[in-house]
Amino acid sequence: MRYELYYWPEIQGRGEFVRLALEDAGADYVDVARVEKTGIAAMVRVLENHSVKRPPFAPPFLKAGNLVIAQTANILFYLGPRLGLVPKGEAGRLWAHQLQLTIADWVAEVHDSHHPISGSLYYEDQKREAKRRAADFTRERVPKFLGYFEDVLKRNPKGSSYVLGKAISYVDLSLFQMNAGLRYAFPRTMTKLEPKHRRMVALHDRVCARPRLAAYLSSPRRLPFNQEGIFRHYPELDG
Amino acid sequence: MRYELYYWPEIQGRGEFVRLALEDAGADYVDVARVEKTGIAAMVRVLENHSVKRPPFAPPFLKAGNLVIAQTANILFYLGPRLGLVPKGEAGRLWAHQLQLTIADWVAEVHDSHHPISGSLYYEDQKREAKRRAADFTRERVPKFLGYFEDVLKRNPKGSSYVLGKAISYVDLSLFQMNAGLRYAFPRTMTKLEPKHRRMVALHDRVCARPRLAAYLSSPRRLPFNQEGIFRHYPELDG
Repeated sequence: MRYELYYWPEIQGRGEFVRLALEDAGADYVDVARVEKTGIAAMVRVLENHSVKRPPFAPPFLKAGNLVIAQTANILFYLGPRLGLVPKGEAGRLWAHQLQLTIADWVAEVHDSHHPISGSLYYEDQKREAKRRAADFTRERVPKFLGYFEDVLKRNPKGSSYVLGKAISYVDLSLFQMNAGLRYAFPRTMTKLEPKHRRMVALHDRVCARPRLAAYLSSPRRLPFNQEGIFRHYPELDG
Repeated sequence: MRYELYYWPEIQGRGEFVRLALEDAGADYVDVARVEKTGIAAMVRVLENHSVKRPPFAPPFLKAGNLVIAQTANILFYLGPRLGLVPKGEAGRLWAHQLQLTIADWVAEVHDSHHPISGSLYYEDQKREAKRRAADFTRERVPKFLGYFEDVLKRNPKGSSYVLGKAISYVDLSLFQMNAGLRYAFPRTMTKLEPKHRRMVALHDRVCARPRLAAYLSSPRRLPFNQEGIFRHYPELDG
């Protein structure tokens, strides 16, 4: 099965959580909107096609045979067992998904730290509000989420190397991305917090040492963090 | 199976999406935190119990036998087939879940329309920012979400009575709740928008005419909308 991923071609964004799973598994996939010249038009064609019976609200979405699946966590729920990136039983899959949904909430809060008023206004037009929101985000929310996942790692009865059992899952890949993104966006905050979240840091290092993922991260397929994505570095927002 | 739902006892909030499914299906359940005297303590005990292997990040969560499942959409994904509130096949379940996750995003935006800076500050302490955010929310986001679900109803190849096929699903119940909540919070905005979203209004009426749901809605089990929940009525935020 050749998967087709559709996502904005110039940012990591939410699509990156799916890319990391596909790359780590060595899956056969096309990052459709990044195909030169024709890519974005192909994505827009799906979004504007009124004969699609199950229209996505927004990218990312995945085409897998006849299926069109949207919502990042839903895509990972579907891909997980097919890529060997989640336990097979229902209880394990639900637990992985629950964690992924909590990551999705965290991602939305990262976005709103620089866009607390509207996604359709420039940062400069909501900078004053962003300063207030980011102050709360770095002081209250980042420690709360980091602490939660640190605790989840600690409680794993099979050891703290990964969040679920003994093997890596797509949730671990997503937590790597959260850690990397927060380091980019909020370096001062993370320098302060990382010593208290050693399992999360170790997980980050363990994930990016995986051969296929390391190859991906140093390839041109990995877009750099930038000021258009979800993780943005504005020094004035960094604690 | 007697389900145990755990959620804040004084608001509809996110727990209400689960309550509507349990009530419509006539399921056997306890709304644990609403049991007088002992309820909240029982919920806090689970949240603070360090021997829980799969800790929820926050309520709502559901106990189903040995399982503890959190995240509203994940709970509904689990309950859907057991309550007969979703198609049985994988494609239908994923599509229902994708829609539920889009509703979850919408719910988060409703919350942030009155709390754009921090969930731990009073409304009065972020009223100025709330006015800006709510102006964008009522002008851009509510029409976008309403229009999307109106279109989903329109595209259903089995007719526009429900979002999936010919039968009701938990997604329809959740859309009823969105419509009802938005009417409470933003009556002027909804009076303006409803004539353009007739399928959504018809769905609302169809859902609340269901005998079990009608009985629930007129019972004391249905908490009234209030100024502590996700849907709050501040006239100055209503378009």
